[in-house]
Amino acid sequence: MRDYSKEQRHLAIEQTKNMPVGINNTSIQIFNIIRNSNGISRAELARVIGMSKSTISQHVNVLIDLGFIVESDETQFSGGRKAQLLKLHKTSGYVLAIDLGATSLNISICNLNAEPLIIESEDTNVADGPEIVLNRIVDVSRNLLNKLDLSSSLLKGVGIGLPGPVEFSSGIPVAPPIMPGWDQYPVRGFLEKEFGCPAYVDNDVNIMTLGEQWAGIGKDVQNFIFIKVGTGIGSGIVCQGNLYRGSMGCAGDIGHIGIDGLETVCSCGNKGCLESLAGGKAISMRAIEQVRKNKSQVLADLLAKQGSLSAKEVGLAASMGDAASVEIIKESGKFIGQVLAKLINFFNPSLVVIGGGVANLGDLFLASIRGAVYNRSLPLATRNLSIERSVLNEQAGIIGAAAMVLDKLFLEHMCS
Amino acid sequence: MRDYSKEQRHLAIEQTKNMPVGINNTSIQIFNIIRNSNGISRAELARVIGMSKSTISQHVNVLIDLGFIVESDETQFSGGRKAQLLKLHKTSGYVLAIDLGATSLNISICNLNAEPLIIESEDTNVADGPEIVLNRIVDVSRNLLNKLDLSSSLLKGVGIGLPGPVEFSSGIPVAPPIMPGWDQYPVRGFLEKEFGCPAYVDNDVNIMTLGEQWAGIGKDVQNFIFIKVGTGIGSGIVCQGNLYRGSMGCAGDIGHIGIDGLETVCSCGNKGCLESLAGGKAISMRAIEQVRKNKSQVLADLLAKQGSLSAKEVGLAASMGDAASVEIIKESGKFIGQVLAKLINFFNPSLVVIGGGVANLGDLFLASIRGAVYNRSLPLATRNLSIERSVLNEQAGIIGAAAMVLDKLFLEHMCS
Repeated sequence: MRDYSKEQRHLAIEQTKNMPVGINNTSIQIFNIIRNSNGISRAELARVIGMSKSTISQHVNVLIDLGFIVESDETQFSGGRKAQLLKLHKTSGYVLAIDLGATSLNISICNLNAEPLIIESEDTNVADGPEIVLNRIVDVSRNLLNKLDLSSSLLKGVGIGLPGPVEFSSGIPVAPPIMPGWDQYPVRGFLEKEFGCPAYVDNDVNIMTLGEQWAGIGKDVQNFIFIKVGTGIGSGIVCQGNLYRGSMGCAGDIGHIGIDGLETVCSCGNKGCLESLAGGKAISMRAIEQVRKNKSQVLADLLAKQGSLSAKEVGLAASMGDAASVEIIKESGKFIGQVLAKLINFFNPSLVVIGGGVANLGDLFLASIRGAVYNRSLPLATRNLSIERSVLNEQAGIIGAAAMVLDKLFLEHMCS
Repeated sequence: MRDYSKEQRHLAIEQTKNMPVGINNTSIQIFNIIRNSNGISRAELARVIGMSKSTISQHVNVLIDLGFIVESDETQFSGGRKAQLLKLHKTSGYVLAIDLGATSLNISICNLNAEPLIIESEDTNVADGPEIVLNRIVDVSRNLLNKLDLSSSLLKGVGIGLPGPVEFSSGIPVAPPIMPGWDQYPVRGFLEKEFGCPAYVDNDVNIMTLGEQWAGIGKDVQNFIFIKVGTGIGSGIVCQGNLYRGSMGCAGDIGHIGIDGLETVCSCGNKGCLESLAGGKAISMRAIEQVRKNKSQVLADLLAKQGSLSAKEVGLAASMGDAASVEIIKESGKFIGQVLAKLINFFNPSLVVIGGGVANLGDLFLASIRGAVYNRSLPLATRNLSIERSVLNEQAGIIGAAAMVLDKLFLEHMCS
């Protein structure tokens, strides 16, 4: 294995150290109120926040100077006087957002509200290693900038999600199991050098969680869990309004939580791991088993036609009334709900968002998860709990990658 | 059921609203550095925090005016000049700290470093209802103030932990299962009226967690879980340096997390709850069962002598080599570790502290918990994880009740 690390890694860490540490809470509060409004006057801001108009104006002027907000032409009447409305300055800069999966690549240019202006999706193979994949990312990104007729100097930052563990502070993948060749590769440094702006790297589930928080049903929710059910299963945690990464950066790694007493052997070597019982791969294996046992003609036909069976085909078969497929989906949902019930007792969130490809299995899947949770969680913990499907779907990663950059950029500017 | 609530509750909530919302991070940072030092000079503070000496001095002067810190007589040489040392002003005020259990009451007067100056412990019965118990608390507290020759006007605040769920913002117990008569009783209002200073109320496990954070092995740990193993089992969560209470205030309620597939019926109506398998009551019941089955002469002798068997006697029997008792303790630890392994995968803390009466079962108990965790958690999640017994023991609640007051008082003063 090559050792990219030492010097480059040291450089990445040094760069991180230069980030300011304090945070101006008021400016951030003001920015977020403006961002979430359709335009708001200084007087209204002062009233909402409970500060003098002059103090508000000081912060507002800083935000305008930084290009984050703009005084719009629209006005509203306030106390008999016309007041100009402040709005997010969405196009004073752009963000390059990248969602890299094991076999898929989504790249987007977003505005400063993390809204994708253009998205390019293609197949990839992360196992080709960082040079090939990252150079392809650079090519596609430059194409997108050209299509939008934007100079790369307008890029305020780059955000990327990777399908494996990342040391967030340095932007370096750490022993990612399905990414051969990427261990310790300075992804952050590569992107910063290539695009000449700050870059941030995190794992795919964390950026999807940020996407849900920025533009999905997690908006304004203080404590929630996002669960990605894809080939594997992982989760992201928002605690007191912030993404929580844990002490070693692996918080939310719920795919290998064990269901007590079950003997299914997981790729990790343990038995009864949630992922090995309820993830997309488990669903696919169970479907093939049903075909082999002659339990489902619908699945057998789909297998003959497609050559493979994924969660998507199982969902299709279930919607056609195939009993074996309905059972597979219900069982997968039940396992997820069983683990979730425990986490809800512990963490007491007000929202759980289910995302990832397998979440598209639909209402039957969601109902099974909910059933298992309500069956086994504390009544107080579920009293105001919602369990919902993601509304952002495959865009969660792109929006989240952009949101990660914007959160960071804004904090840095505010603190410098 | 009586309805104490409406007006008094409204009052309590109104009082809460008057609390300032912003926080002066720098002042708090300075205070905490001083509090944790054995004396530090202004110049050293400026160097540590990375701010100018004049800015530091502004904050320091505010802290001195508020009586939180004091310029001590001690000096140190700094850059060729003598510099006076700043220290916590421990005795510019006092805090009344109360740890109320189902059958036990600990009351203490603490200094402004949450150090108990005097502790009074007695039996109580929380089921006698709030009037009887709270009036007894007032009598004992006044006695303690007299013993120390302190006027109650020197009390800066009162902190109390209750053995049941509490709405923290209003200081009111919410449907506490083992506290008949206390539901919706305005505990906070009662104490504030009686002692003429701010009062704060939380559940017993949360205050023990705060105690561990203030003066125990949780000091300076950003993310940890405190587990109280007593008659029941509960936990407190410190997330990113703050006690995390969850969306409905019931975060950490792990006693009713189920072990999959087990059929032991819990008092909550569910099967396989952790508390019903591994808490003090479960240990006691299992010990009696062993006596009934003639599996342990040691336990039979202890039962005959004491008339009952608690976790303490099981621990004693185990230390005498009683195989049945060793087995009971190992099994209890294993169940706790089994649940903990899942929570560690999810939350990725760097520390788990085991406290409460049953934690005194000793190394065998701790080893069983550790074994089950290391056996079933992700390697990355346990790489830097410590699982330790509380060093504060029964003082955790008292220190935590005082710490809760000091945290709040300090924030309030700083923001007003």
